[in-house]
Amino acid sequence: MPSIELDPNLSRYSQRTRGMKASEIRALFAVATRPEIVSLAGGMPYTAALDYAAVDEVTTGVIRDHGPIALQYGSGQGLPALRERLVEVMAAEGVRATGDDLVVTTGGQQALDLIAKLFCDPGDIVLAEGPSYVGALGAFASYEAEVRHVEMDGEGLLPAALEDQLTRLDAEGRRAKFLYTVPNHQNPGGVSLSLERRHEVLAVAQRHDLLVVEDNPYGLLDFKGETRPALRALDPDRVLYVGTLSKIFSPGIRVGWVAAPESIRDKLVQLKEGADLCQSNLTQFIAERWLGTQPWLRQVDEYRRVYRERCEALLTELSAELPAGCSWTDPTGGFFVWLTLPEGLDSGELLAKAISARVAYVPGRGFFADGNGSRHLRLSFCFPQPDEIREGVRRLAEVLHAEVELVRALYGGREQDRGAAGTPLPLHRER
Amino acid sequence: MPSIELDPNLSRYSQRTRGMKASEIRALFAVATRPEIVSLAGGMPYTAALDYAAVDEVTTGVIRDHGPIALQYGSGQGLPALRERLVEVMAAEGVRATGDDLVVTTGGQQALDLIAKLFCDPGDIVLAEGPSYVGALGAFASYEAEVRHVEMDGEGLLPAALEDQLTRLDAEGRRAKFLYTVPNHQNPGGVSLSLERRHEVLAVAQRHDLLVVEDNPYGLLDFKGETRPALRALDPDRVLYVGTLSKIFSPGIRVGWVAAPESIRDKLVQLKEGADLCQSNLTQFIAERWLGTQPWLRQVDEYRRVYRERCEALLTELSAELPAGCSWTDPTGGFFVWLTLPEGLDSGELLAKAISARVAYVPGRGFFADGNGSRHLRLSFCFPQPDEIREGVRRLAEVLHAEVELVRALYGGREQDRGAAGTPLPLHRER
Repeated sequence: MPSIELDPNLSRYSQRTRGMKASEIRALFAVATRPEIVSLAGGMPYTAALDYAAVDEVTTGVIRDHGPIALQYGSGQGLPALRERLVEVMAAEGVRATGDDLVVTTGGQQALDLIAKLFCDPGDIVLAEGPSYVGALGAFASYEAEVRHVEMDGEGLLPAALEDQLTRLDAEGRRAKFLYTVPNHQNPGGVSLSLERRHEVLAVAQRHDLLVVEDNPYGLLDFKGETRPALRALDPDRVLYVGTLSKIFSPGIRVGWVAAPESIRDKLVQLKEGADLCQSNLTQFIAERWLGTQPWLRQVDEYRRVYRERCEALLTELSAELPAGCSWTDPTGGFFVWLTLPEGLDSGELLAKAISARVAYVPGRGFFADGNGSRHLRLSFCFPQPDEIREGVRRLAEVLHAEVELVRALYGGREQDRGAAGTPLPLHRER
Repeated sequence: MPSIELDPNLSRYSQRTRGMKASEIRALFAVATRPEIVSLAGGMPYTAALDYAAVDEVTTGVIRDHGPIALQYGSGQGLPALRERLVEVMAAEGVRATGDDLVVTTGGQQALDLIAKLFCDPGDIVLAEGPSYVGALGAFASYEAEVRHVEMDGEGLLPAALEDQLTRLDAEGRRAKFLYTVPNHQNPGGVSLSLERRHEVLAVAQRHDLLVVEDNPYGLLDFKGETRPALRALDPDRVLYVGTLSKIFSPGIRVGWVAAPESIRDKLVQLKEGADLCQSNLTQFIAERWLGTQPWLRQVDEYRRVYRERCEALLTELSAELPAGCSWTDPTGGFFVWLTLPEGLDSGELLAKAISARVAYVPGRGFFADGNGSRHLRLSFCFPQPDEIREGVRRLAEVLHAEVELVRALYGGREQDRGAAGTPLPLHRER
């Protein structure tokens, strides 16, 4: 009897999944969790900074007080009481919304998946920063959308580059379904869209009737506690806003949301019901009580303090240790630094050497849909302790120095300027 | 500035969602929750039968004992310790699997969604019982698959009808992506596939190299505690098995799973990661502790007792009250009875009268992808108390008697045989 799993021609599978391969990044993460390796790869929040006693208190009360509802099916849109609390979270960043505008999702990731499902047919165009969040690229690819990247620099995406892309699409008689952007402390770029550019980006979007999907996991994690006006705050009818509690509370409860204009929201509710019927009422009650009974903004302050310290450790060590020709972004919040290697180096090819030297990062190519990114890599400072971060950078620097020597010996080399943090960087331009 | 939500031509949306309308069933459920209405519509398990003190105990310990992992991101495949427990749940029905065969999903619904995403391109054929689970039909439709129904009777789907469908597809040069079936206490049919037919169905599937998706939410809820061999137990390489804790524990934790051959399982893990990164570790720990530390099979016994009593109340009252010409299935477990109305009656048209008479049900058409089902309706006995069920049936019977009188007065009528429970029923044949 032939086994179905051995079906060689793949014709059983949908088009969208025939080319699906085991993720390189997943294989990497499996290696990176070994204790001897300093992982600057993963984007896990440092949940050890949580007040566990407080979480325990919140969790314990939920079954006692809400058992019959907490253990039952919920609504497709999400628990009304939680949606009201999420409105308060958005308000902390100056975004106005009502609970009725929101659909609760399984983290921000499910919001991106449902948005892609709602808008994208095979071959449709989606615009996204280059580099962009790998999970978003995966969601768009799973509906066979084609991602075109919009260039960034140290102040976020370039409005002129966006205008160029849209003009080119107009000339082709095509239309982008939406722009996907992470305006605050971008993953993986580590940069934020300046206020001036926010207005410019929205002006371009208005001229071209472009929908904007604003993904904002890190907005409250600004090291100075500053907030920038959300795109949704500036143009509510044009912007779908994706939020999550994963970075300001816990990813283990899987609570995210999307705020959308009414007709779009209704369709997202239907897609949510089709995807998994409803969110867990139990974890929604936990989230609601956390936000309603605990000083959650103090917890955000604590996270900020932790990440600021780690980011400083990373940046200081990068300046001290990395070879000339490297440059990197200068985050004002979030989890990530984006590193550009000297000419001739390939972050994908170097990874095996880095792992041998007991340090892990994510190669840049995964953050582009178009094969770009080989001279870049992402460093995460969110999870390891400052000492580990410093040790990790020293290990990485050793690998890079050796590689630069090798390239120079093989191909000769002109002197290169020593990179520095804080200057606007041509983030995805290759040699 | 034009508002995006008012976009009239819908060209922003994907093909799959342009025809999406607000669900009739959702609108109905909103009405059916009014306290004056006896709802025989919803399929909510009677979670009040849970031992809340035990659930509280389980939940309370999780943060204390597993906080750092419970509140962090988890793996795409699901918590290994939980998967081992789910293997024990499957073993209680005689299905052998290993934890490594399983992918944890957000209820059974997400498993169906991911399976459809993995296999279905627009226009692809999926076979399903007629009638079939409305959530599965929705998931398949959301990937633009075309569902063809396979006839059933009181012993489940007809192997000859399956053979017919497959032969017809062969003649068309087409191939079904899979057969979707709920062999035990089917939703909405309330019937189970007999042992003999299980072998016959698998023989047909083998002859036509057909993949089978076996959805088994109700298998442990047999009123006599009997179990039938799962299709997966009979042919593990051909069958994807979907399970859930929603009906034997709680839907509020949203824990389901799929057991699949290795290559398919790996792809499902990748799709799960794309859909929402991972399941909640917190609720997975709660499920794991429930199954590991509580007498969960005793809880299943309690559920069984509750549902058996309610089913008896429903069947007895149907026999006593319904007009001649009605017939219905005779469940041996699960949540549902499938009712066939006398000729000339339409369950969709009658619903408004039923709601006025303060009783709700689900019209049959929602359980067919092809417009069939107007003479049928689904009655759920899972949630209301026996007295409410009896009252609901009396209200429904009054509406039906009046309607039968009306039809007879308008069109004349021959005497019809009084239907009875327990006889094999041509479940989806219309006049």
